[in-house]
Amino acid sequence: MIIHPQPNLTPDAHAALIEQLRQLRFKVTPVRTQHADYLVALGPPDVDLRRIAALPGVRDVHRVSDDYKLVSRKWRVHPTVLDLGDDIRLGEGSLSIVAGPCSIENEAQMEAVMQHLVQSGVRLMRGGVFKPRSSPYSFRGLGLEGLRDFYRLARQHGLRIVTEVMQVSQVEEMVDFVDVFQVGARNTQNFNLLDALGGVDKPVLLKRGVSGTIDELLHSAEYIFSGGNEDIILCERGIRTFETASRNTLDLNAVPILKEKTHLPVFVDPSHGIGLREHVAPLALAAVMAGADGILYETAPVPERAASDGQQTLNFDESARLVTAMRRTYALRRELEAELA
Amino acid sequence: MIIHPQPNLTPDAHAALIEQLRQLRFKVTPVRTQHADYLVALGPPDVDLRRIAALPGVRDVHRVSDDYKLVSRKWRVHPTVLDLGDDIRLGEGSLSIVAGPCSIENEAQMEAVMQHLVQSGVRLMRGGVFKPRSSPYSFRGLGLEGLRDFYRLARQHGLRIVTEVMQVSQVEEMVDFVDVFQVGARNTQNFNLLDALGGVDKPVLLKRGVSGTIDELLHSAEYIFSGGNEDIILCERGIRTFETASRNTLDLNAVPILKEKTHLPVFVDPSHGIGLREHVAPLALAAVMAGADGILYETAPVPERAASDGQQTLNFDESARLVTAMRRTYALRRELEAELA
Amino acid sequence: MIIHPQPNLTPDAHAALIEQLRQLRFKVTPVRTQHADYLVALGPPDVDLRRIAALPGVRDVHRVSDDYKLVSRKWRVHPTVLDLGDDIRLGEGSLSIVAGPCSIENEAQMEAVMQHLVQSGVRLMRGGVFKPRSSPYSFRGLGLEGLRDFYRLARQHGLRIVTEVMQVSQVEEMVDFVDVFQVGARNTQNFNLLDALGGVDKPVLLKRGVSGTIDELLHSAEYIFSGGNEDIILCERGIRTFETASRNTLDLNAVPILKEKTHLPVFVDPSHGIGLREHVAPLALAAVMAGADGILYETAPVPERAASDGQQTLNFDESARLVTAMRRTYALRRELEAELA
Amino acid sequence: MIIHPQPNLTPDAHAALIEQLRQLRFKVTPVRTQHADYLVALGPPDVDLRRIAALPGVRDVHRVSDDYKLVSRKWRVHPTVLDLGDDIRLGEGSLSIVAGPCSIENEAQMEAVMQHLVQSGVRLMRGGVFKPRSSPYSFRGLGLEGLRDFYRLARQHGLRIVTEVMQVSQVEEMVDFVDVFQVGARNTQNFNLLDALGGVDKPVLLKRGVSGTIDELLHSAEYIFSGGNEDIILCERGIRTFETASRNTLDLNAVPILKEKTHLPVFVDPSHGIGLREHVAPLALAAVMAGADGILYETAPVPERAASDGQQTLNFDESARLVTAMRRTYALRRELEAELA
Repeated sequence: MIIHPQPNLTPDAHAALIEQLRQLRFKVTPVRTQHADYLVALGPPDVDLRRIAALPGVRDVHRVSDDYKLVSRKWRVHPTVLDLGDDIRLGEGSLSIVAGPCSIENEAQMEAVMQHLVQSGVRLMRGGVFKPRSSPYSFRGLGLEGLRDFYRLARQHGLRIVTEVMQVSQVEEMVDFVDVFQVGARNTQNFNLLDALGGVDKPVLLKRGVSGTIDELLHSAEYIFSGGNEDIILCERGIRTFETASRNTLDLNAVPILKEKTHLPVFVDPSHGIGLREHVAPLALAAVMAGADGILYETAPVPERAASDGQQTLNFDESARLVTAMRRTYALRRELEAELA
Repeated sequence: MIIHPQPNLTPDAHAALIEQLRQLRFKVTPVRTQHADYLVALGPPDVDLRRIAALPGVRDVHRVSDDYKLVSRKWRVHPTVLDLGDDIRLGEGSLSIVAGPCSIENEAQMEAVMQHLVQSGVRLMRGGVFKPRSSPYSFRGLGLEGLRDFYRLARQHGLRIVTEVMQVSQVEEMVDFVDVFQVGARNTQNFNLLDALGGVDKPVLLKRGVSGTIDELLHSAEYIFSGGNEDIILCERGIRTFETASRNTLDLNAVPILKEKTHLPVFVDPSHGIGLREHVAPLALAAVMAGADGILYETAPVPERAASDGQQTLNFDESARLVTAMRRTYALRRELEAELA
Repeated sequence: MIIHPQPNLTPDAHAALIEQLRQLRFKVTPVRTQHADYLVALGPPDVDLRRIAALPGVRDVHRVSDDYKLVSRKWRVHPTVLDLGDDIRLGEGSLSIVAGPCSIENEAQMEAVMQHLVQSGVRLMRGGVFKPRSSPYSFRGLGLEGLRDFYRLARQHGLRIVTEVMQVSQVEEMVDFVDVFQVGARNTQNFNLLDALGGVDKPVLLKRGVSGTIDELLHSAEYIFSGGNEDIILCERGIRTFETASRNTLDLNAVPILKEKTHLPVFVDPSHGIGLREHVAPLALAAVMAGADGILYETAPVPERAASDGQQTLNFDESARLVTAMRRTYALRRELEAELA
Repeated sequence: MIIHPQPNLTPDAHAALIEQLRQLRFKVTPVRTQHADYLVALGPPDVDLRRIAALPGVRDVHRVSDDYKLVSRKWRVHPTVLDLGDDIRLGEGSLSIVAGPCSIENEAQMEAVMQHLVQSGVRLMRGGVFKPRSSPYSFRGLGLEGLRDFYRLARQHGLRIVTEVMQVSQVEEMVDFVDVFQVGARNTQNFNLLDALGGVDKPVLLKRGVSGTIDELLHSAEYIFSGGNEDIILCERGIRTFETASRNTLDLNAVPILKEKTHLPVFVDPSHGIGLREHVAPLALAAVMAGADGILYETAPVPERAASDGQQTLNFDESARLVTAMRRTYALRRELEAELA
């Protein structure tokens, strides 16, 4: 059950409302986000909603049958659109394109990618400064200093940046130099990190776990939302299966299923999803037709020399063609959707 | 190594050629298909090809580095197109649409589906008369008699039919009443059945195993081809993973990977791939953009009353809209491909 | 619901009973096995059992809440023990050991294995004459002729044989030369084969599918039982997962779960389960402690030269030590079980 | 390559040695653990080891062909045994038993468990104070204060405690109140946490990831070791597969494979591995026979009322019987091993 308290409720009245719900045997979690106040109340399923609605201080109340509540589309039926300013919006109604290298390596590399993105009309750049690597002896990123350069250069080019955060202590260090925090597939259930990201006012792009279910992804998003941050993007990036011909198995089933279950934007990362450069483009276009609100992929000046993930990274020619193809594919999808409506 | 013997070689000369290859320590499998004669020779990897080419009776010879040989695109670089007559072709250059109920149930049902397909311009109808069911107490299909009716009615409507064969003894019983044999996902490694299908001159649509790798699918196709039947279609239909929100996990990665590895047509079955009626359409369109040569899906007059698989079956309205949408999506894909060429 | 008709019921009375059940809206499958007659009736869950019990011709009736019926332990609470004669029994109360090569290759090989088994006190020998192989160019077994030699030699040594059947037509050809039919992991859902094995009076060892669930295994056993053959052994042999360090992932969880759900004997095949010769023994002992009624493993005179599966095959020294260790492990398990009782 | 510098090398000589290795094109990671100094050098595979051995300051050098180095058994062939004092040793040569509730709930619960453990001769108690939960609305543990009580009470009963750490900032807060840090299955690749645990002098029990490969587990252990902490225990706890009859699929194949690949102790958690209370015992005994150095399982006074994981928790009777059975099983394993030696 999700309850909106009346606006301008005094702290005492707010506390009194919670107390009354507890006496009705509800477990109540007060949630204050950048946009609104909510009470998430878990408890007896058979309570008459009108009784709750009649409590002093309640503006409205919704029953949500899903285990996750605030991210459920049963509660909020209109899709969430995130506004990054400067006419950059993420979510239903547009196709977001996020491109860039796996790892930020140096200023020359960033400059080259940024010029390519600006020429292609892409407004969002991805790039990691903290890299989760299986082996402790691999390249692990440029760190905070690299992030500051990345952010500064991006601002000069009118770009927004999406970059991975790996632990709680980095959240505060990074927050002023990030437009969108990315949570990687190994951290989807790093609940402390999700809690911490609930406390900031920057959007979070949450990747599905390597072997995470759709349901777990939604629960992880619920952590961020219930922590106070409504601005969440979900991202399918391939799951681990028995198949070894591709790096992961991109699960495009997840796209329409997520769009049905949640109001949050759903992105797809075909680069990690297949892991083979020559096949990134068809999977990106497939993801657009499956209903994705955005595509995240890897591009770099010379993929063969990238510090990480070169085998799944496009060069600028391939990237430019993909951007055009995605836009035309998205335009067709919009036409087909319009005819259905 | 694949060797084409010279045409009109006498049986003695043919036998002599094989003998010479065996003396060079090759294991030789003679293959005679409906289209040509081949010798598949496995053996020492370092033999000079020119030496083989110079043997009496050899027209040409190709080294194939894959473990499967005859289905490899390293040998036959041009895509295979199957001609079913009446201007019905399967494979690269067109988008094949195969639609129909999970199970053939009765004449009224068939008649309704056929009229719908003819109206929509669909030329191929699917429908099972032998149904593999987990439980012995479930409906198991109308059997041979149902097949004869199915075939006869389809001919009257100018349609071709695709239907599943489940065991060796059925191959001969069915062969005169089938246009395309389907091998289901539980029989992908039923090697005796594959051998038997190598002996007929009707195309085989081979579905990927429930937990079969791409490599195993290609090896299973090699069974059919080396048994003498070149007319094979591969079909991705979802694999088994840990995810339970969908019936299977449709692996669209498999589409571009298969298209690169083999010259055979690649179809996709989004109905089994996601198993949720409301999401079949976006996955079908995604499959088209991923590069599929054909789409196989389930439609029936009243899905809610179907004897099997009703929860993933489209009604005729949904089906008609999907056909239109797939064609427009395919047209866009062809445009994008043409611009790249 | 499982109904035992009264013994010596006339055909007319039997038919009348079925008719009455159908009028009560039950779907009735009459089952006649080598041991008894049953009626499996699926239908309205809320019927009063006493009403059924009162029908003329009914001896007794059991409600079975599982989807599979005849193999359920909810119906038959005592474990099934198969008697192969000569004091060879399979099932609870003893530990069956089945050993031998992957493929039968020639008489010398069989003779060597048989002498080793006799010396070790092992009474059951495994060995394939029809080999399911991923590639059509691999060794595919000696066939029927090899089987006749295998059976004849085994009889001379007082051994029983377990060997794989791959298709329906082989059932009749093999039946006189087989003690236990094995259904391999690629045929667990070859329902026509299961049907056919329901019609013979030889036990069937049914392997779990490569990616088959425990539930599917039980349903496949139900096919054989409902086809008329009660003598079924289930065998866990490893499932397909993402892990590549072992050939399969041996799922020993399946052992106690199956023992709880079914009255049938449960065997384990550690050779395929891990696929690494040096680790077969610890997994075999683990399987014994997990509750297995039998162990099936591969041994050959010179594993390094075996025609198939050599990398998971024990030599005779290793095999003899394993037999001793399994017996001592089983003795301990019996002691521990006795103390609990 | 792992290099032991000579003891008492001056800082300058140490730096000079690293510099020389770098000039030979090695990437050098200096590792200082609680026990010794090492240099991990990755580089040209064809360098003559004698040339490295001859460098000033080198005591000895080993080539390690695995990607992980310090945890490899190719380097350190003798198994690592951890000494917790008070005659409590973990690793080869004894069977460690770690038991206790999923979550620490209150003093009465702890007291009851501790008395049970002391009576059973168990020296190690598990219990979580920070609980990773899929839903933000579930019970999340007693936190630091609970930990202090847990540690204090355990000391009074002569017990050592194993408890989960979830994020970097907790490491320092917890270190004085922990005997063994546990890293849970969702944090196996939380590399920052692994780094931080490299910096403490308390053992770490590292669980395998929910869908982590054996190889990834070893790489994660390498993080901790190369961070400076040699005292690591690996723990198999079930992986995620398609099977839904059990909570996870316990992968006992991993036990002998890990024992071959690494010198670290290998534990097994059958409670999470199967997730069904009635089947924990057979799996625990199976794990012992598979070669486990320790077993970790859940027990609580009244499992039905536990705050978490009650469905897989043993009561004290079951627990006491299991302890006895594991010891007898381990005794048999030792006998069988001794006969082989």
